[in-house]
Amino acid sequence: MDDRTYTADAEPGDTVTVAGWVHEVRDLGGIAFLILRDTTGKIQVKFEKDEMADELVETGLNVQRESVISVTGDVEEEPRAPTGVEITPDSVDVVSEADPELPLDPSGKVDAELSTRLDNRTLDLRKDETKAIFEIRAEVLRAVREQFREIGCTEINTPKIVATGTEGGTELFPITYFGREAFMNQSPQLFKQLMVGSGLERVFEIGPIFRAEEHNTPRHLNEATSIDFESAFADHEDAMDACESVVRAAYEAVEANCQDQLEALDLADEFEAPADSFPRLTYEEAIERINATGELDEPLVWGDDLPTEGEHALGQDVGEHYFITDWPSEIKPFYIMDKDDDVSTGFDMMHPTMELVSGGQREHRYDQLVAGFEQQGLDPEAFDYYTRMFKYGMPPHAGWGLGGERLVMTMLGLGNIREAVLFPRDRQRLSP
Amino acid sequence: MDDRTYTADAEPGDTVTVAGWVHEVRDLGGIAFLILRDTTGKIQVKFEKDEMADELVETGLNVQRESVISVTGDVEEEPRAPTGVEITPDSVDVVSEADPELPLDPSGKVDAELSTRLDNRTLDLRKDETKAIFEIRAEVLRAVREQFREIGCTEINTPKIVATGTEGGTELFPITYFGREAFMNQSPQLFKQLMVGSGLERVFEIGPIFRAEEHNTPRHLNEATSIDFESAFADHEDAMDACESVVRAAYEAVEANCQDQLEALDLADEFEAPADSFPRLTYEEAIERINATGELDEPLVWGDDLPTEGEHALGQDVGEHYFITDWPSEIKPFYIMDKDDDVSTGFDMMHPTMELVSGGQREHRYDQLVAGFEQQGLDPEAFDYYTRMFKYGMPPHAGWGLGGERLVMTMLGLGNIREAVLFPRDRQRLSP
Repeated sequence: MDDRTYTADAEPGDTVTVAGWVHEVRDLGGIAFLILRDTTGKIQVKFEKDEMADELVETGLNVQRESVISVTGDVEEEPRAPTGVEITPDSVDVVSEADPELPLDPSGKVDAELSTRLDNRTLDLRKDETKAIFEIRAEVLRAVREQFREIGCTEINTPKIVATGTEGGTELFPITYFGREAFMNQSPQLFKQLMVGSGLERVFEIGPIFRAEEHNTPRHLNEATSIDFESAFADHEDAMDACESVVRAAYEAVEANCQDQLEALDLADEFEAPADSFPRLTYEEAIERINATGELDEPLVWGDDLPTEGEHALGQDVGEHYFITDWPSEIKPFYIMDKDDDVSTGFDMMHPTMELVSGGQREHRYDQLVAGFEQQGLDPEAFDYYTRMFKYGMPPHAGWGLGGERLVMTMLGLGNIREAVLFPRDRQRLSP
Repeated sequence: MDDRTYTADAEPGDTVTVAGWVHEVRDLGGIAFLILRDTTGKIQVKFEKDEMADELVETGLNVQRESVISVTGDVEEEPRAPTGVEITPDSVDVVSEADPELPLDPSGKVDAELSTRLDNRTLDLRKDETKAIFEIRAEVLRAVREQFREIGCTEINTPKIVATGTEGGTELFPITYFGREAFMNQSPQLFKQLMVGSGLERVFEIGPIFRAEEHNTPRHLNEATSIDFESAFADHEDAMDACESVVRAAYEAVEANCQDQLEALDLADEFEAPADSFPRLTYEEAIERINATGELDEPLVWGDDLPTEGEHALGQDVGEHYFITDWPSEIKPFYIMDKDDDVSTGFDMMHPTMELVSGGQREHRYDQLVAGFEQQGLDPEAFDYYTRMFKYGMPPHAGWGLGGERLVMTMLGLGNIREAVLFPRDRQRLSP
């Protein structure tokens, strides 16, 4: 099938074979046009009924929309054609005939519910807008990995089947592993920390995480893509610097390499990479600013976690990506290093509309770490495979986890996180 | 912690702070040397006992091996030092003291069993050889993704929690998903096929797969990394071309960018990228050549699957990467397109020592596909989310899956596939 030409490469004067989907047929009487669509674009195929064999015309004009066809013919300039060229066919071959009843209109003229689109992702991804999201997603992952390498990280892959969850807890999917109880991992946290004590020192991983959270919201998934960073000899400030650089690299790559996709999403004009450094607000400043907006019924006091409406009010107020630092120790996980008795090195990185990243410097002192497990009500014995390594020279280290789908969702202003995953998993949806 | 200098960057004349692990202390009486190791290499720290404060000497020489320390001092040329420079310390700070009893010797002087190494990966990865494997693995993944993009693929991520397995069967880990039965996916096969019918046309995915296979061998894992390719408007020949290009790109990148790592593994001299094209043997030729080696007790006949010893005999005979094509239809999965009644378009790509890739052109015709499910004893209804899309214009397509760990294992001549995974999962091993 090497002799296929992409529609975007069909030049006037060429004789080509193009193959793709029947996007549209317009029959104007003596003349008819078939628009053929492939991954690179669309091309017009012209049928002049009186000048062509009946069979050729019949094949071309009776084929169902969204069928796969292959067309061989001469390419000519035609200013009135959508792409400035058209093909006069010598032959039309119906490769795969589509059912006349489509569950979804890939031309996008008829809107479909999200659930219909997710049930029919194959057809949904024939639309320029949907395709653009996933091409941008791929570019984001490429750019993120490149930036991680730029800052000296080695890519790792850690196991998704685990004996214990990162933080214990109930948000784990249990699996049966050769008769033993195991779980799908909710975070590579413990494993990436084990790697900073190794000769690799600075690592990243992009992989699936699994959370059995019950809530079904437009910004939660039960299977998501986590972008994880962890570095030896780093503190929370270093980790925030790395976080800024990675997020900015993703935006810059999309701006540089995805203009067509941004056009398809009607975002080309407004798309903008974030500033060089994101404002860093302390938790205390954050609650003060939230209280000052007057958006909450009850003002927040020290120790409160930020409610969603508080995040929204603050995000509107700040108007760009920002960090919240110096969280009360008691609302950050026990493996986060404390600055003092009350305040931790934990931080969140926020998009104006939602949290994207959670990170901090980690507790690398064995005794304190084991005590933390106990205070959390977890059995340190069950985590011995992890804590044990802290006895053999564990350097100070810091890191973070970034929600891949949330990054894409906020970057493109998508209304539902499911728009940023090919086949989302939530409480109801397990298929396709 | 921004003022840390990597040991590899410490230049004579500089005053630096280096930080890392105590690799070795050699006390020669009046003078003593501490070798400090970080991710970039090692550096000698000199203690002249009569000329330095007692406290400094004591801190430097009494610290346990593999402790994390930070050393500030002047770098000087010293031809007798391992790297040609040494540091005369002004201060030594013990950052994280190691237990004197180590479960593993990171200097590599004392050999350890694989299971001890896997239990203590953090320490194991302080050894140059182990670290080299995982740096090469990361480079392989980088190069493979780059080559996929080179040949027009879009990266996708498909779900790891699924309602049905690719081929049904018993090799699935069951999970409890909000009270429903679900499984961990054994292959992205069905999902990547759904994508070739979308506007993406050509896709790749690198992600975990999960197989509840009972056998515990040096070349099987229950959680592995699958490198998957699938392309619209491609046949099995196109898929084999893509496969060659991806595997070659991985070798070439390692050759170009990982000379230090190959040195550490003692492979620098013999390492060689495979030839431009791999021999393509038909199944019939393959069994003839195996029979001709006389290695099997019983000669193979048409329809037999190749036993492991047959693969070995043939691999030795061929002596390079090769394809086996034209397999009997009956031993290839039902979703592989047949060439005729007996022979399929399925192929395997083999390293001389084992199978790396399985692929073929896929059945894209709805009626034939549904019949295939039935013949396999599977309920087509359960796969409706997949087969349904074949009614709406599914192009001819082909693809393959490559075992990521097997690629690294064969590339580096590792004796056990567990050497190529940070935290392997097998029947016995579920932690760390």
